[in-house]
Amino acid sequence: MPRHLERDLDNLSKELLTMGSMVEAATNKAFLAVSQRRQDVAQEVVEGDDEINTKENRIEEECLKILALYQPVATDLRFIITALKVNNDLERMGDLAVNIAERAMRLVELDPMPLPESLSKLLSIVQGMVRDSLNSLVTMDAKLARKVCRSDDAVDDINRHMYDEMQELMKKDPAAVERAINTLSVSRHLERIADLATNIAEDVIFLVEGEIVRHNL
Amino acid sequence: MPRHLERDLDNLSKELLTMGSMVEAATNKAFLAVSQRRQDVAQEVVEGDDEINTKENRIEEECLKILALYQPVATDLRFIITALKVNNDLERMGDLAVNIAERAMRLVELDPMPLPESLSKLLSIVQGMVRDSLNSLVTMDAKLARKVCRSDDAVDDINRHMYDEMQELMKKDPAAVERAINTLSVSRHLERIADLATNIAEDVIFLVEGEIVRHNL
Repeated sequence: MPRHLERDLDNLSKELLTMGSMVEAATNKAFLAVSQRRQDVAQEVVEGDDEINTKENRIEEECLKILALYQPVATDLRFIITALKVNNDLERMGDLAVNIAERAMRLVELDPMPLPESLSKLLSIVQGMVRDSLNSLVTMDAKLARKVCRSDDAVDDINRHMYDEMQELMKKDPAAVERAINTLSVSRHLERIADLATNIAEDVIFLVEGEIVRHNL
Repeated sequence: MPRHLERDLDNLSKELLTMGSMVEAATNKAFLAVSQRRQDVAQEVVEGDDEINTKENRIEEECLKILALYQPVATDLRFIITALKVNNDLERMGDLAVNIAERAMRLVELDPMPLPESLSKLLSIVQGMVRDSLNSLVTMDAKLARKVCRSDDAVDDINRHMYDEMQELMKKDPAAVERAINTLSVSRHLERIADLATNIAEDVIFLVEGEIVRHNL
């Protein structure tokens, strides 16, 4: 591999990790805005999305530049294509953090209600998945990627449980409908972030093992 | 452009259109399952998803093959990268059709309720967007792509309206909570399909005009 290509690919990995940290910070903040009822923090998340979008555009340009400049083949080519997809997934995670922040803004306007305990548990699982999926890409670690895919089941379970819990609440107390729907949305957005982390992990397994595991796990 | 590359790119466009038709058919069927309360049709959509996933894998392999074989640059390179992203978006639309079908299965088990009128309107707008976004890619028509982006606002309006309508229903009639939540999900899944069509359209504008319009429309 030419020295410059190697350097550019290293750089690309670092940029993706940086973008991952930006998305993680946005998700953290959005959740804080929900749990602490902080309109100002929610607003920061919404405003910060521009920076994530700009980063996505820059990484995509970088991928295209590397493709055009070195015309890489085999593993390098696959790595860049995977980077493009991961980049796209990260940007969508950023959008989901914004969606959570928007729900926080609405919840602040409503009467407070205790957050279901499983919601913080969900957040911590989802963030672990995002981090592990990116690390698995950068270190080409299919084992770590498989761990991410397995975590997705736990996420689905918690989400389903949240759904039942909120439904019961709405049946019992019609005045709580709007709060419950907004809380449910937070849970669903977290689940979608987990789905995107799973996408990344599946792409990493494919990259490392050269077989299509998507839709076949 | 070498003759064979041209032929392979044409072929790639055709494959994407075929995949688009598969996704459209799945969405139609899923909606039919909701509106006609047809468990069997919903089941067909769930089972048909494998075929869409296989198609996605095949198109991705095709893109990688073209990249490795011809090492295209400039517009051809961008076209293939766009095709990869569109392929991914179409597969996600297929997943959303499955999600709608799953809601249909649950709704069949509950008491019937009249479907909100705006839901069929939403379906028809969303399907037009999916079709136009793919056509804009194949014919490199930025004007048509911009039309798709503009339709997204109408979709958001209808979805917001559905949200208010279902919320009112749940407040008035706690027994309707589960039906309303499932109906709301159908609307939200349709909205996400529209978002993906908008992604495709934005990528097409970028491809044709060489400027990043994403996040800047």
